[in-house]
Amino acid sequence: MSLAQEDRLAELVALAREGRIDTFIERAWKLEPADLADVLAALDEDERLVLVRELPAELSSQALVEMRGDAHPEDTLAALDPVQAAEIVEELEDDDAADLLGELEPEQQERILAEVEDRADVDRLLRYDDETAGGLMTTALVTVTDLDNVGLALEAVRRQAEDVEDVTEIFVVDTARRLVGSLSFKQLVVTSPETVVRDVMEDAEVRVGPDEDQEDVARLMARYNVPSVPVVDPSGRLLGRVTYDDVIDVTEAEATEDLLRFGGVSPDEELGGRWSSAVRSRLPWLYVNLLTAFLAASVVYFFEDTIAKMTALAIWMPIIAGMGGNAGTQALAVTVRRLSLGQVPADRLWAVIKKEMLVGITNGLAIGLVISLVSLLLGSEWRLGLVVFLAMTANLFVAGTAGSFVPVLLERLGVDPAVASSIFVTTLTDVCGFSLLLGLATVVLL
Amino acid sequence: MSLAQEDRLAELVALAREGRIDTFIERAWKLEPADLADVLAALDEDERLVLVRELPAELSSQALVEMRGDAHPEDTLAALDPVQAAEIVEELEDDDAADLLGELEPEQQERILAEVEDRADVDRLLRYDDETAGGLMTTALVTVTDLDNVGLALEAVRRQAEDVEDVTEIFVVDTARRLVGSLSFKQLVVTSPETVVRDVMEDAEVRVGPDEDQEDVARLMARYNVPSVPVVDPSGRLLGRVTYDDVIDVTEAEATEDLLRFGGVSPDEELGGRWSSAVRSRLPWLYVNLLTAFLAASVVYFFEDTIAKMTALAIWMPIIAGMGGNAGTQALAVTVRRLSLGQVPADRLWAVIKKEMLVGITNGLAIGLVISLVSLLLGSEWRLGLVVFLAMTANLFVAGTAGSFVPVLLERLGVDPAVASSIFVTTLTDVCGFSLLLGLATVVLL
Repeated sequence: MSLAQEDRLAELVALAREGRIDTFIERAWKLEPADLADVLAALDEDERLVLVRELPAELSSQALVEMRGDAHPEDTLAALDPVQAAEIVEELEDDDAADLLGELEPEQQERILAEVEDRADVDRLLRYDDETAGGLMTTALVTVTDLDNVGLALEAVRRQAEDVEDVTEIFVVDTARRLVGSLSFKQLVVTSPETVVRDVMEDAEVRVGPDEDQEDVARLMARYNVPSVPVVDPSGRLLGRVTYDDVIDVTEAEATEDLLRFGGVSPDEELGGRWSSAVRSRLPWLYVNLLTAFLAASVVYFFEDTIAKMTALAIWMPIIAGMGGNAGTQALAVTVRRLSLGQVPADRLWAVIKKEMLVGITNGLAIGLVISLVSLLLGSEWRLGLVVFLAMTANLFVAGTAGSFVPVLLERLGVDPAVASSIFVTTLTDVCGFSLLLGLATVVLL
Repeated sequence: MSLAQEDRLAELVALAREGRIDTFIERAWKLEPADLADVLAALDEDERLVLVRELPAELSSQALVEMRGDAHPEDTLAALDPVQAAEIVEELEDDDAADLLGELEPEQQERILAEVEDRADVDRLLRYDDETAGGLMTTALVTVTDLDNVGLALEAVRRQAEDVEDVTEIFVVDTARRLVGSLSFKQLVVTSPETVVRDVMEDAEVRVGPDEDQEDVARLMARYNVPSVPVVDPSGRLLGRVTYDDVIDVTEAEATEDLLRFGGVSPDEELGGRWSSAVRSRLPWLYVNLLTAFLAASVVYFFEDTIAKMTALAIWMPIIAGMGGNAGTQALAVTVRRLSLGQVPADRLWAVIKKEMLVGITNGLAIGLVISLVSLLLGSEWRLGLVVFLAMTANLFVAGTAGSFVPVLLERLGVDPAVASSIFVTTLTDVCGFSLLLGLATVVLL
């Protein structure tokens, strides 16, 4: 955002706080909804409510929908008089209305929807899971009939387009409203009016059912470079469409989820939320980690006598275990991302693991050689050098194997491979690292 | 991908291998480019080259461009006769042509471009950095003049649209080709022909320069929900447009980069590349990790006497250090993602660190309490309980502080905060964990 723009937004925040509503509204009309949303987000909850009460529904509706991150526009909606809230809902596209209302409790939803004039579409969309094609789609779209000619189709488009905010393409249906093709505006405009739609339309093989996972919808649209994808029921009847802007949001949200899961944070944690909610989100996971840390420590406990006889081993412990953790995390990052991009066909999963085993053993030999040389240079006897070499090589092999096997297994079990993978892998590399180092030392050195 | 579709693609692969080119071509015409690209990617390099030599340029061009992941379509292009390669390039939109040619060495590019009829646009695009708006944009777009009426504009659109594959919107320029607004097809179609364009167009404030970073372009388009963003030179003249499909690809690529960096893997590693190239990509990073592991181990070395007197400390070492690493990774994941989504204004960076410090100390107290209780239950004396409590609490405080401070610092220095953050943070939590545990033990217990 440019500095000039930030100044302009700060000015609007000031106007709202000073209660200069008329001036505020006058300027707000000139803003993009996302920018007005930032102004609303910069106010505290009470100030926002006071302002929204005064704003025309046409302005406030768009701004509330565009509020991103961790602001809670639904709270503002719920605090309004139900009649005013309903006016705002009526201004919105049905998918945006369903998204906003979907964050509320059923009773709150009902109190507002009771005042909405035509609630059927929103009611229908509210029934779909948030993270599916049905939860993303809008029912606002433009259709023409396959047997019409292009001139008639253009007339039909003119009639319908008024009510559809963003016409990405025109869907062609048969008389039973089954989807049979699509037309771009461009085709409509460049084709002579007498041509029958059926003869110029593109096929519409790229389509999804309402229960399709949002990530798969996003991947499909990226793959086929389409501005929207039609959602059809099992008999092929057109229910709605998911548009490109939803897909960008989905892709970003999934990337956030993946990184948080990878870092051992609940994907539900609000990035900009309060510190106390961050504690609630992270502490349970740390307790799970603590259990696995005790598991690794119990290996050390088992070999306490060995350490007592040779305390130098305590120095090598964090090196062997830590390098295993690093190599495992590398294998994990690559494998999780390959799986999450859908790049690995089911019959090639084994090849993925084999590759990581090869990488693991090779890196293990390379690192093992260096640290055994270092240990010799530091004056250790050659048998200790041999122990750290073997322990390091074996542990990095374990790291590569586990770093690819765990996510592949989770994927096969139908679990998101990013979930908890890192905790399994680093526990394993800790346990194996300590066992290898201390076990080999017990055998070879004592 | 459905099973039926996979079968169909497998059949085409078989046809190509058997050299039944006519049947192949007949079926290939019915495929989406991305599906044909999968067929090409399933062939080995030599087979692909043989096939592409036989395919009409209209088919092969689209399929080569859509090859994803780690296939190298540019190698096929370079291996063709330059005249045939030029035919393929001529079939492509200029941005796709530049992307494909951009992967080749300058001499290879020149050999092909010498045969291309109208190379000016591609030449211009090749000059921009890959990861900028200029590198993403196409120069193929439709413009109308602001003082024309809508009827004339529609005529102009009809004339130009033939040559533009995907018309996302119509740009309005003045007589000096400076961008002054935009029109959707919908507006064009629903507005009466006598209206002057200037009176119905939307403003075009959302625009970027050719050097804008691709991540910022993607963020802008997601923010304003636009299907394309115009690229203008410093005087406001229209150069091209970046479209929604590029943005989905950019968002996915950036997510891959972030996760790989976070996992300590070079973002250039090809996810499905050979094991030997994975070794080359990851081994240098492991050597850096090894250096930091020696740093942590040297702390243990410093306290070797303490461990010799009380080997039980070796059991607590991985617990204190490991939990610090976990908590630090949590803080890091949240902070890196907040920064990378552009959610933190420059004047609120300090608040981000303060929050993570609070989370760190709170989780530290909660975990510290549990492990000191466990140590007492296992029969340790109360002074050891006190030492592990203090070491754990302090180390989790360090973890939260470093996990937020390091990426914030990198961001301020203009470095991608995902780079190498995790290595700094886990080194710090290892060093601090060992120092705290062994140092406190030396003071309190011996």
